[in-house]
Amino acid sequence: MNDGLPSEATALSPGSIGNVGVGYDVLGAAFDAVQDRVRVERIVAPTVEVGTITGTVTELPRQPKANTATKGLLDLVADRHLTHGFRVHIHKGIPLSSGVGGSAASAVAAMKAAQVLVDPPLSDDEVLHYALQGEAVASGALHGDNVVPMLHGGLVLTRSLDPLDVVPITVPDDLYTVLAHPNMQISTRSARAVLPQAFPVGAIVQQTGNLAALIAGCFQQDYELISRSLHDVLIEPYRSRLIPGFDDVMAAAREAGALGGSISGAGPSVFAWCENEAIATRVGEAMSEAFATVELDADIWTAPVDSAGARRIEAN
Amino acid sequence: MNDGLPSEATALSPGSIGNVGVGYDVLGAAFDAVQDRVRVERIVAPTVEVGTITGTVTELPRQPKANTATKGLLDLVADRHLTHGFRVHIHKGIPLSSGVGGSAASAVAAMKAAQVLVDPPLSDDEVLHYALQGEAVASGALHGDNVVPMLHGGLVLTRSLDPLDVVPITVPDDLYTVLAHPNMQISTRSARAVLPQAFPVGAIVQQTGNLAALIAGCFQQDYELISRSLHDVLIEPYRSRLIPGFDDVMAAAREAGALGGSISGAGPSVFAWCENEAIATRVGEAMSEAFATVELDADIWTAPVDSAGARRIEAN
Repeated sequence: MNDGLPSEATALSPGSIGNVGVGYDVLGAAFDAVQDRVRVERIVAPTVEVGTITGTVTELPRQPKANTATKGLLDLVADRHLTHGFRVHIHKGIPLSSGVGGSAASAVAAMKAAQVLVDPPLSDDEVLHYALQGEAVASGALHGDNVVPMLHGGLVLTRSLDPLDVVPITVPDDLYTVLAHPNMQISTRSARAVLPQAFPVGAIVQQTGNLAALIAGCFQQDYELISRSLHDVLIEPYRSRLIPGFDDVMAAAREAGALGGSISGAGPSVFAWCENEAIATRVGEAMSEAFATVELDADIWTAPVDSAGARRIEAN
Repeated sequence: MNDGLPSEATALSPGSIGNVGVGYDVLGAAFDAVQDRVRVERIVAPTVEVGTITGTVTELPRQPKANTATKGLLDLVADRHLTHGFRVHIHKGIPLSSGVGGSAASAVAAMKAAQVLVDPPLSDDEVLHYALQGEAVASGALHGDNVVPMLHGGLVLTRSLDPLDVVPITVPDDLYTVLAHPNMQISTRSARAVLPQAFPVGAIVQQTGNLAALIAGCFQQDYELISRSLHDVLIEPYRSRLIPGFDDVMAAAREAGALGGSISGAGPSVFAWCENEAIATRVGEAMSEAFATVELDADIWTAPVDSAGARRIEAN
C-alpha cells in the first residue's frame, strides 16, 4: 500500500448526555469524563476485521456487521470500492448500556480515526454519516442525539438529521455536568419500548416551554432560568421507573446545589448540571449516597458541558 | 371620589401572533400594526359597565361577565372590595376572530388603563393576571400566548403561566412580520377542536428541533437558521385545512422572499417573517394575490417583530 496514506490512526470519542432531559432526540452534550479509544489499521484485503477489545467492556460482537465500531467502515469500503480494508482495535472507557452513548462513541472514534486513512479523506459530513450507520447497529435506527455532540463537542442541537442541520448552543464556561452511573444496565431498545407512541398536548406544551427556555437560558448565561427549565415532563415520567431510587437521587442533587438534571439518554445514568466544578463535586457525592440507599453502587464523573469532541491522537 | 386617583385612563394594546408556528401555546410576538384602544372611566357604583363600542367590531357582548374587556375588571372590583367601579369604552382596531388576538387585546388594554385607577396601582403581574381572566372569556381557558406578548412587546416565551415565567427572546432589529388577514372567521374554540388530543413522537421530535433552533437563530441573528426552523409540523397540518389556499399563500410568501411563516394563533390570518421591511412589503403583495386566487380578500399589515407592548396614552 505505497499510496502515501498512514498505515493506522487512533482517535477517541467522549461519551455524551443524550436528550439533556428536555430535548428528546434533538439535544445532546459531549461528556469528556469518559472516552472510547479506537485504533484503525489498514490491511491489504478489502474487508473489515474486529481486532483487540480491551477496557471496561470486552464482550462485544466480533462480526463486523454487528459491531458499532466496524459497521460504518464496512459501508465505507463498499461505497468507495476500496482495494484495502481495516482492522479495528477497540478500547472501551465507557461502560456498556450506561446511557452515556457507549455504542455511539466506538462508532464515532472509529470513523474519526479512519477519516485520514482514505484518499480523499472523509469530509466531516461523511464521518458523521458513517458513525450514524455504526450507532444504528445498537439502537436499531438513526439517532443523532449522541453521535452529533460526540463529534462536535459541547451542547449541540440536531434540528434535522436528513438533511443534516446541527446547531451548537453556547453555554456558560463554568457549567458542569455530573454523571452518576449506577451499576445496572438498561438497553436503548428497552428504554424506547416503555415510551408511548403519542403524548398529550398538555405535556408537549410544558416540555416545549422548558426546552425553549433552556436554550434561551444558555445563550443568556442565566443559571436561574436554566434551573427552572431543566425539567423533563415528557420522557422522564416513563423511563425513571426503570431506575431504582431515581426521584431521591434527583432530589439529593438539587438539595446539594444542582441546577437540575434528568436521565442521561436511555438511562440508567442520571446527570445533573451545576454552576461550577466545586458544586459538581458535592452534587456527585450526594447522588452517590442516594443510590447507595437503594443498594446501587454508582460511578461518579464530572466534566464541563463545553468540552471537546472526538479527536485523533497519537497511538499509545 | 376625592381620592387623588385619575378619573379615567386610556390604553392601547397591539395584536399578537400567537404560537409563531413552532411554539404552540408558549411563543407569541406582539404585532403593533393593529391595536385595540380602551378607555376606562371610574364610576361611583362598584360595578362594571360596557360603554361605547366602536371601530372594526361593534357587536360585542354587553354583559360585563361575557366581555373580555370587562371580565378582569369585575374580578378586580370583587377581589379588592372596591367602593367604586368602571365604565369601559372599547375601540376595536383588530378584526374579530382573525387570529391576531383581538379578544386578548381588549382585555390587555382595559387592564393596562385600569392599572392607575386603583390605589395601590396594579402591579404588572396583577395586570397580567386580570387580562388572562378577561381573555379566558373568549378562549374558554387561560392561555398566555397572546396576552403575554401584548403586555411585553416583541417576541416572548411563556415557559409557565402558573407560576408565571416569561422569557423575552432577542430578535434581529430588522426582522419584520407580514400578516395576511383573509376576510373570513375561525373561532379559537373551533380551531382547538380540530386538533387531536395527542401527537406522535416523531412529529414532536421534529417540532421541538425547529422550536429550539428558532430560539437559537433569534439569539444568533442567523436568518438562515430562522428560515430553516420556521416550520410548524405539529399544529399547522390540522388547522391549515380550515384556511382556503393556505399552502399556496405560504408558497407565494417564501417565493417572494419570506423566511417562513405559518398560521397566526388559531387563524385564519397567516403570518410570514422577513429580513426587512422592503421584503415584507413584497411578501404581503404576494400573499394577497395568492388569497385572491381562492376569492378571498385579505388585509395586509406589516410591523417589526421587536415592537412595543401595551401602553397608556392620552385620550383622544
